[in-house]
Amino acid sequence: MSERWKRMPVSVDILDTTLRDGAQAEGISFSVNDKYAVLQALSEMGIRYVEAGNPGSNPKDREFFSSVAHNDSLGTTLCAFGSTKRKDKSCEEDPQIQSLLSAGTKTVVIFGKVWANEIAEVLRVSPQDNLEMIKDTIAFFVKRKIEVIFDAEHFFEAAKDDLAYANKALLAAQDAGASCVCLCDTNGATMPEDIAQYVEKVADIMDSSRCTVGIHCHNDSGVAVSNTLTAVLHGASHVQGTFNGIGERCGNANLSTIIPNLQLKYGIPCVSSDKIELLTPIARRIADLENVSLSTSAPYVGVAAFAHKAGMHVDAIKKNTKTFEHISPDTVGNARRLLVSEIAGKTAVLELIRKIRPEMDKASPEVEKVLTRIKQLEYDGYSFEGAEASSELLVCRELGIYRPFFDLERITVSTENPKQGDMSASSFIKIRVEGKVEVTAAEGDGPVNAMDKALRKAMEVFYPELHKTKLTDYKVRVLNRAATASKVRVLIETTDGHATWRTVGVSTDIIDASYKALVDSLEYPLMRARLTVGST
Amino acid sequence: MSERWKRMPVSVDILDTTLRDGAQAEGISFSVNDKYAVLQALSEMGIRYVEAGNPGSNPKDREFFSSVAHNDSLGTTLCAFGSTKRKDKSCEEDPQIQSLLSAGTKTVVIFGKVWANEIAEVLRVSPQDNLEMIKDTIAFFVKRKIEVIFDAEHFFEAAKDDLAYANKALLAAQDAGASCVCLCDTNGATMPEDIAQYVEKVADIMDSSRCTVGIHCHNDSGVAVSNTLTAVLHGASHVQGTFNGIGERCGNANLSTIIPNLQLKYGIPCVSSDKIELLTPIARRIADLENVSLSTSAPYVGVAAFAHKAGMHVDAIKKNTKTFEHISPDTVGNARRLLVSEIAGKTAVLELIRKIRPEMDKASPEVEKVLTRIKQLEYDGYSFEGAEASSELLVCRELGIYRPFFDLERITVSTENPKQGDMSASSFIKIRVEGKVEVTAAEGDGPVNAMDKALRKAMEVFYPELHKTKLTDYKVRVLNRAATASKVRVLIETTDGHATWRTVGVSTDIIDASYKALVDSLEYPLMRARLTVGST
Repeated sequence: MSERWKRMPVSVDILDTTLRDGAQAEGISFSVNDKYAVLQALSEMGIRYVEAGNPGSNPKDREFFSSVAHNDSLGTTLCAFGSTKRKDKSCEEDPQIQSLLSAGTKTVVIFGKVWANEIAEVLRVSPQDNLEMIKDTIAFFVKRKIEVIFDAEHFFEAAKDDLAYANKALLAAQDAGASCVCLCDTNGATMPEDIAQYVEKVADIMDSSRCTVGIHCHNDSGVAVSNTLTAVLHGASHVQGTFNGIGERCGNANLSTIIPNLQLKYGIPCVSSDKIELLTPIARRIADLENVSLSTSAPYVGVAAFAHKAGMHVDAIKKNTKTFEHISPDTVGNARRLLVSEIAGKTAVLELIRKIRPEMDKASPEVEKVLTRIKQLEYDGYSFEGAEASSELLVCRELGIYRPFFDLERITVSTENPKQGDMSASSFIKIRVEGKVEVTAAEGDGPVNAMDKALRKAMEVFYPELHKTKLTDYKVRVLNRAATASKVRVLIETTDGHATWRTVGVSTDIIDASYKALVDSLEYPLMRARLTVGST
Repeated sequence: MSERWKRMPVSVDILDTTLRDGAQAEGISFSVNDKYAVLQALSEMGIRYVEAGNPGSNPKDREFFSSVAHNDSLGTTLCAFGSTKRKDKSCEEDPQIQSLLSAGTKTVVIFGKVWANEIAEVLRVSPQDNLEMIKDTIAFFVKRKIEVIFDAEHFFEAAKDDLAYANKALLAAQDAGASCVCLCDTNGATMPEDIAQYVEKVADIMDSSRCTVGIHCHNDSGVAVSNTLTAVLHGASHVQGTFNGIGERCGNANLSTIIPNLQLKYGIPCVSSDKIELLTPIARRIADLENVSLSTSAPYVGVAAFAHKAGMHVDAIKKNTKTFEHISPDTVGNARRLLVSEIAGKTAVLELIRKIRPEMDKASPEVEKVLTRIKQLEYDGYSFEGAEASSELLVCRELGIYRPFFDLERITVSTENPKQGDMSASSFIKIRVEGKVEVTAAEGDGPVNAMDKALRKAMEVFYPELHKTKLTDYKVRVLNRAATASKVRVLIETTDGHATWRTVGVSTDIIDASYKALVDSLEYPLMRARLTVGST
C-alpha cells in the first residue's frame, strides 16, 4: 500500500446475505435444513452478521427464524430483513412489520427508498411521507432494543439525481437510531470512481460515533469486489455480500474474495486472524449447500486458484513461489497444485512419478513415456487434473508395476420402466481373481448405483478391506455437442473415512465411463497398499 | 461520469489472448480447428489483435500459424507470442526466435523481464544483459517490418522493488521500436490504487507518439476487470485479456465485461459501435469452443445477467426497467427473462400462462394452481428456469388442455460389457396410440442414445413430423451428494432446424430422468401444433 486514506476504518463488520439476497439467484433454493447449515458455516467463520431471510414474504423463512432466533450459541448475529412500513398503516398495524418483529432477532435490516424519482413512480408517496416511513419504522424497532441497519436501495442512482434528498433520508435513519446506513448499488450499475466519491460525501455528513456507513454491491458491471474495497478505503466500515458471490442476475459482492483482500492485502480486520485459514473449506461447504459448483477459478478459494499448468510456470514456481503466487495458498486454507496436462513440462509429470518411484529424475525415459500416454488420453477426452488417483494408476501401468486386481468376464446393466418393485435397475457381474470366479448381481436406484453395488459385492469377496470405502461424489460432464451419442467424462470421489481420492473414466457410453472410474476407485487403495508392503 | 482524467485515451486497442494465456487454464485444450473457430469469432467481433499461441514451445501452435498467418481476409491482426532471446545466442541462432519469425505474423508479442530480482534469480543474467536482450530481440523484428508489442512480465512487483530499472527496460523497448509496452500484473497481486499510480508514472515517461502503454491483468485478487479499467483511465490505451476471462489459476481480465464497460459506461470505443450487440452471441460461441459452461451470472453475457426472480423485482421491472437493469439487455445481444420459480410472484407465472391462454389475468384461479405445482416440482429437484418447453407442458397439464400423445407399455434399456458388436446398449419399447400398438427396438452408443432412438422410432410411426427434430444438447446435473443413488436432473435441447426448445427430467435414475426429458422434447412440438390448429 503506497498511501493511506484518511477515512479508512480500523476494522470492518461483514454481513452475509447468502440466505436472503443469495436465495434470489437463478437456480438457488434452500431447504430449512440447508439454511441452518449455511448459518452454522458462517458462524464458524466468525462473520459478524447473517441476514437470513424475509419473514414477511416467505413462510419458509418464518419457520427458520422461529427455530433459530433464540439460539444463543451462535457466533454471529442473526438478522431478519424487511422493508419500511406502508404509508397508510402504523407499524403496529402493518403485517410485514409485525412478521419482522415476530422473527425475534436482535438485529433487523430495513430497506427503504432514497431515490426521489422512484418514490414517486413505484411507492406513489410524497418525498416527505417517505422520510416519515423511514423514521417511524426504525424508531419502532429501536424502542424495542432491536438494532436496525438501514439499507438505502438504489442509493447511487438517488445520489446522482438528487443527493440532497438522499442525504436527508440517510440522516433521518441516523436520527431514528439506525446503527448503520448501508449504501446499495442495487442495479450494479455504478463504477468505482463514483462509489468512492459518494461514499466519501456520505461519510462526511454522518456522525460515525452513532451510525456507520455500509456498502452493498451487485456485480452487473463485474466490479462488485472492487467497488466494495473502494467504499471501505473511502469510509465504509460495514460490508454486505454473499460468500460465493451468489445473488440475483450477476450476483452480489463476493465475500470469499473481499475478506482476504481486506484482511491480507489492506490489513483491515473483518474476521479474527485465526479464522482466515477456514476461508477455502467454508466457501466450498457453502457451495455444496447452495448446490452450485464453485468456480474452479474463484480467487483464493477455487481449486485452480493456485494450480500451475504451463511448463515454464511450473519450473519457475519450483524455484520461487513468489513468481506466480500472490499469497501463500495455505494462508486461506487452499493448496498449490502442479497440473499434469499436455502443455505441462516434465516437472509436473516427474513430481507424479516420484510419488511411486522417488529415485527417478527428469532424464529418466519413463518421464517421456508417461507424458506421451497422458497427452494421448487427454486427446481422447480424459482430464487428469482433477483425478489424482487415476493418474497414479496410469503411472503404475506405464512403469509396468500395475497388475490388474481382477478380470472382468461380463457385466450387464438393465433398467426397466415401469419398474419391477422398488428398484429401477439391476446389474449382473462375473469376475475372476487368480482362477476363482465370482458371479453375483445387485439391484439399484438407477443403473450406476446398481453397477456400483454389483462390482463392490463381487470385489469384496476377494478384497474385504474395500468394505470401508464408499462413493462420496459422482459428476458427469458431456464433452461435445453431438447430443446423446457424444462422449461423457465421469469423475468419482471415494473415501475410506480418512483419505479421499478422485478417479476418471471417459466413454461414449455413460455406463462404460462410470465403470472405468469405479474400477479405478476400487483399485487405487489396493494398489497403494501393494506399493506400501513392497510386494511389486 | 463525474470527472475526466487527463491521460484517458480516446480509444483502446483490444488484444485477446484466449488462444495463448487462456489455453493455460485448467481444463482447456484447443484443437487446431477450435483455434481457427475462436479466431473467426474474435475477428467477427472486430477485436484489434488476437494472440494465438507460442510457436516456439508447441508444435500444435506452429501448425496453426502456418495455416492462417497469411489469411488476409481476417478482420483482426494475428500475433505470435514468444520471449526475448537467450543471452548466449544471437536472434539468428536462437531457435525460439526463429520459430516466432517463421510463424509469419505481422505482429509479435515479446515477453521479457523487468524485475531486477527475478532477472538475477530465474534468468541468471545481469540487469544490463537483460536490457540488451530486450533491445536486440525487438530490433530484430522491427528491422523485418514486424510490429512488436512488449509484455513486461511482473511489472508491478518490479516497479515496487526498483522502478528506475523497470522504467529503463520499458524505455529500451520503446527505443528498439516496440509499438506498445504492456504492463503485466502476472500474479494478479496488485490492487487498483497501485495500478493507477504506476500506469500514470509509466505514461509520464513514454513517448505516446511512438509507443503506447498497455495493461494485462490476472484475476487472483478478483479485481482484474477493475484494474484494467483503472489502467485505461490513467493512460493505458492497449488492453489484453480473454473473452470469457479464462486463463491460468483465477483467469485473465474478462474482455466480455471490459469491452461493454469501456464502450457503454465510459464512452471509450474499443470495437466499432455496430459490433457491441454481438457481445453475447460471440461470448457464448467462444465458451462452447472452450467447452466450458459460461457462468450463468457472467456480467452482460450470462443467461442470468438480466433474469429477474424475486416477486418484487419482477413487478418493479414491469413498471420501470431502470429499477433493476443497468443497461438495456439488447444493447449487448442479451435478453431479459422473468423466471418461473417458487419465490417468483404471480407476474412471471401469468406471463407463462398467457402464452397459452392470453385471456387470463392475475386473479384467475389457474395462476395459483400452476404456481403451487411449480413449487412442488421444484421441491422435488426440478428447475424450470432453463426448460421453457417443460414449463409450457406443465401449464397445459394444469389447465386440463394436455392429453398424452402415447401410452408407454414398457421400455427397457440394457448395456453389456464386453460389448456385442459395435453398440454397447440396446433398448426395447412398446407404446400404444389410440388403440394401436407399436413394438420396436434400437441399439445405441450408450443407454440414453439407444433409448432416444427406440422412442423416436416408435413415435414416428404415428407422428412422422417428428422426423425433422433432433437432440442438440444433453446435460446432466447430480443434485445432491449421496453419490450414485442421488437425484439427477437431465436437461435436453432439441431443434427442428428453426426453433429450439429445452426440456427437463428429474429422477434418482439417470435413464428415467432422461426418459422424462425426452418425452417432453417430443411432445412439446406436437402440443404446440395441436394448440395452433385449435383442436383442443
